Amino acid sequence: MFLFVPQYRIARTFMTGNKRKVEVCFTPALYPDFRNDEAVVVIVDILRATSAIVTAFMNGVNRIIPVATLEEALVYKQKGYLVAAERDGIVRDFADFGNSPYNFKREIIEGKDLVYSTTNGTYCIMLAKNSYRVLIGSYLNLDSLVNYIMQEDRDLILLCAGWKNKFNLEDSLFAGALAELVLQHDRYTTHCDSVHASVDLWKLARNDLMNYIEKAAQRHRLKKNNLDDVIGYCHTRNMTAVIPALKSNYLTLVEHL
Amino acid sequence: MFLFVPQYRIARTFMTGNKRKVEVCFTPALYPDFRNDEAVVVIVDILRATSAIVTAFMNGVNRIIPVATLEEALVYKQKGYLVAAERDGIVRDFADFGNSPYNFKREIIEGKDLVYSTTNGTYCIMLAKNSYRVLIGSYLNLDSLVNYIMQEDRDLILLCAGWKNKFNLEDSLFAGALAELVLQHDRYTTHCDSVHASVDLWKLARNDLMNYIEKAAQRHRLKKNNLDDVIGYCHTRNMTAVIPALKSNYLTLVEHL
Repeated sequence: MFLFVPQYRIARTFMTGNKRKVEVCFTPALYPDFRNDEAVVVIVDILRATSAIVTAFMNGVNRIIPVATLEEALVYKQKGYLVAAERDGIVRDFADFGNSPYNFKREIIEGKDLVYSTTNGTYCIMLAKNSYRVLIGSYLNLDSLVNYIMQEDRDLILLCAGWKNKFNLEDSLFAGALAELVLQHDRYTTHCDSVHASVDLWKLARNDLMNYIEKAAQRHRLKKNNLDDVIGYCHTRNMTAVIPALKSNYLTLVEHL
Repeated sequence: MFLFVPQYRIARTFMTGNKRKVEVCFTPALYPDFRNDEAVVVIVDILRATSAIVTAFMNGVNRIIPVATLEEALVYKQKGYLVAAERDGIVRDFADFGNSPYNFKREIIEGKDLVYSTTNGTYCIMLAKNSYRVLIGSYLNLDSLVNYIMQEDRDLILLCAGWKNKFNLEDSLFAGALAELVLQHDRYTTHCDSVHASVDLWKLARNDLMNYIEKAAQRHRLKKNNLDDVIGYCHTRNMTAVIPALKSNYLTLVEHL
């Protein structure tokens, strides 16, 4: 009779014995020390690349092709693609769009392929391309992202785009918000000081997020260029259930992987 | 009569027009993007290298020669120097000491030269050697350090040793404590998100610092090796007024620069 082991007991043993690790990588410059090709990597560039990418999929874009250099973006433009390209927040002359989520309206992008190059965000996507899964994270798709991560059931790395290899507040706060939700599940644990810092900063900021974000250097960069109209939108939770993911060299929805 | 300009007016104009920047660099891997050869750089490795170095000077060591590799440390040992050398918290066989501040008792080190190699701390010292001034920071000498920084009146970089290129909590908290004190002076300002994060984490932690430090991965590494007896000591403020600084290839007191 000792051979009878209830299914839930097996599941529980497995779940406590082999937990999934959560880590936060504050900038792409630190990624080599986090790289884990078996992990799910979430790219975080809240102001504005990953918020814009999620918005584009919410509004029906077919595929997004991230490219690292402006030269590559220009070649695609000459082939007739729609191109979004910016550096330091400013739209490049040859491009159709910059990096504002408000650019990606349904009537313009639905069913289209879009080529995309940004200062930090697209670089991070390519940096993580050898991992098991690369997902695009934002407040706009936060809850559905967490649910999908649970299904994947793997180690998790939150890769913040930061700003030119430096730590930034807005990406780290989002990493804290996401890590807190994931760590509510017994299946996940962390030994990463960056996770503790992110979660604690998130807890400090979340009740007055727009006020806290006033401290962020990127908030002032955007304001200087009259690009700060998107800050509230980029911090709005659960506008959509779409989850963009990398498939070979382009982004698509996870259901099309 | 318009030629008469009171001295204090000149000073005030200068002080408001050209403030000194404070930045926090969370790990040596990020230092290339912070490097500023005109700046004062404070090395921070609270558990335990910089706390130990400050303790050694408090107890009368003559000079400390930081070396990056164990091979260099061994060569010095063979020449008859006192040598402190550890990796991952563990004393190396050939060395006289490890990395515990309790090693550096007055009766052993007073008037002596000491060669020192640690996992992260000595590497950071060498990394910053081209800056205007390299100072050794710890809670033990915090207030005198802040006073000296004020006299230097230059841009300030707080270089956290972290752990193997990753962010750690204990160094970032100290960076927050130091940045908060420096930023109380009108002469200093910051546009660095890492400073905001460090100061906010410090404010969160400071009233129950020993409890907060329980989260730090390094706290658990030390405990595992029975090396955690120093944690309270390393977080004790103003035990001493000594300020070690780098002079060509060795550390001495700032008054001997």
